[in-house]
Amino acid sequence: MVDRLAPLRRTPGIVRLHGHRAARGVLPENTLLAFRNTFDIGVQVVELDILSTSDGIPVITHNPRLLSASTRDAEGNWLSGEGPRIHDLTYEELSRYDVGGLRAGTTYAARYPDQAFLNGQQIPKFEDLARMLAEPAYRDIWLNIEIKSHPEHPENTPPIPDYVAAVLSILRRHGLEDRAILQSFDWRVLEEIARKAPDIPRSYLSYLPRPNPTMEVNVFEASPWIGSAPWARFGGSLPRIVSHQGGMFWCPYHEDLDPEEVALARDLGLIVNTWTVNSPEDILRAIDAGVDGIITDYPGRAQRLLLARGLSWREDIRPVRATG
Amino acid sequence: MVDRLAPLRRTPGIVRLHGHRAARGVLPENTLLAFRNTFDIGVQVVELDILSTSDGIPVITHNPRLLSASTRDAEGNWLSGEGPRIHDLTYEELSRYDVGGLRAGTTYAARYPDQAFLNGQQIPKFEDLARMLAEPAYRDIWLNIEIKSHPEHPENTPPIPDYVAAVLSILRRHGLEDRAILQSFDWRVLEEIARKAPDIPRSYLSYLPRPNPTMEVNVFEASPWIGSAPWARFGGSLPRIVSHQGGMFWCPYHEDLDPEEVALARDLGLIVNTWTVNSPEDILRAIDAGVDGIITDYPGRAQRLLLARGLSWREDIRPVRATG
Repeated sequence: MVDRLAPLRRTPGIVRLHGHRAARGVLPENTLLAFRNTFDIGVQVVELDILSTSDGIPVITHNPRLLSASTRDAEGNWLSGEGPRIHDLTYEELSRYDVGGLRAGTTYAARYPDQAFLNGQQIPKFEDLARMLAEPAYRDIWLNIEIKSHPEHPENTPPIPDYVAAVLSILRRHGLEDRAILQSFDWRVLEEIARKAPDIPRSYLSYLPRPNPTMEVNVFEASPWIGSAPWARFGGSLPRIVSHQGGMFWCPYHEDLDPEEVALARDLGLIVNTWTVNSPEDILRAIDAGVDGIITDYPGRAQRLLLARGLSWREDIRPVRATG
Repeated sequence: MVDRLAPLRRTPGIVRLHGHRAARGVLPENTLLAFRNTFDIGVQVVELDILSTSDGIPVITHNPRLLSASTRDAEGNWLSGEGPRIHDLTYEELSRYDVGGLRAGTTYAARYPDQAFLNGQQIPKFEDLARMLAEPAYRDIWLNIEIKSHPEHPENTPPIPDYVAAVLSILRRHGLEDRAILQSFDWRVLEEIARKAPDIPRSYLSYLPRPNPTMEVNVFEASPWIGSAPWARFGGSLPRIVSHQGGMFWCPYHEDLDPEEVALARDLGLIVNTWTVNSPEDILRAIDAGVDGIITDYPGRAQRLLLARGLSWREDIRPVRATG
């Protein structure tokens, strides 16, 4: 039997790289320009975020509202305060904003000091990226598509059945069912995908409880994020729960990585990717933890660290050892 | 009178950026892929290096010999030891080598840890880049073309008249005389350009004597690098010498910058660019020294530092202040 997920699995000598929001460390996140330039450096998988406009168009952007740190209006002025909700704007309204750069002086900008700054970058339709993947040079590219959804904020997105149907419709129209992973922190979305498109592989994102979480924890007993997943039956073992749910991928936060759990997940047949791994130390630790794939804002840096370890990220790039 | 060099001059609020070898910090240097991706982020000027093959074809590469730290042969093996001389290879022979990445474990690779690694990048013909500049999106791009030449190693290059003629011929064929700067550490090359094409602006590169130079010093009395430039007449004042030579640009090493000399150069009508400025501290120091343009391996980083200072690098990007 052909393993069509082989390009996403770790093999001896190869750890996969997923460019996070294309390559947020160096290019404006989730823009078509960034996707193209990231494909061009030989990154085979890109991670991206989906939300929906008020007229039901899946678009590629991360935050439920336009972010003042990264959004200029049609006159070139920075948004102030809380921007409008993506799901309250038509695509035509949304397309007037420019997300080509980060605003100096903001905390968000300070986190990505090498990210290029340009004008004229719209939030793309998901379909625009799907269309780009038909280009001959990009026939081996995979998409790791995160569907943004929040159990306590249904106003941010369409009803889940409609939302999932819209994304699947684009994948099918462009023949991308064989090059797509669908992932979410909201596992209810993944249940809907399992019903509608059981053959498209699903990835279960997780962020464990901790003393000072920097975002919302999604995995714990009776969490609204995990839908009908039977937490207690598996004693909270995420690899076992994801496997039971029919997931092909488990995607834990990199600080939550435990090599024994990664090994268990792989024994269960899962592919383990981890997010979002940027510092050299963290990238090396993720490699050592045994993951299949690393989601990073700095794919060039991750390529180079793999090579320095005698590893690679794709079959046609040879591991290059430091000696000899 | 129209100042056709206006896009290269500092104006209140604007310091120009030149991508060094395109953007060596993040992409393989002097490759077509790197030039395209650097133009795409809104960098209006790229610096590049010219050498010549044995069959007289100007190519874009920096070192007189293929560098073992950055060159693989047709079988994908790294060159060992000293590679062949560019000027001893035909273009057909040269085009079999791959310069898409840096070799792990080398000193050179360690200097650019975020540079992407890919296969299949040839040393380009200069004419390939000239052709790219005809694309509508790249009509405002300028080239800062460094012609590599060494007074004590004539075997590295064609005779200067032939060499200069070959480069000029490509500029003229592609109508790029109005978007090109020609620069060299070997000012004899610039004298030849002054004779053959006096209207194409020339840039005089300089690296001053110092206790432990990391490359060859080119400016001192009776230096073979400065040709007929009258050193003693101007007491070694580089701005005055460059101005006397009819240069439009002076391009000192960034550690040699002296704000008073920069001011003098600008009073004399020169444009001052400085190379190669990469750390945030050095970039800010170069801005403060009053230069017109900064040549950097990290153009994204330099864009962001300018914005954080309330400055910009081009008229259609607004300075963005940290407050408000």
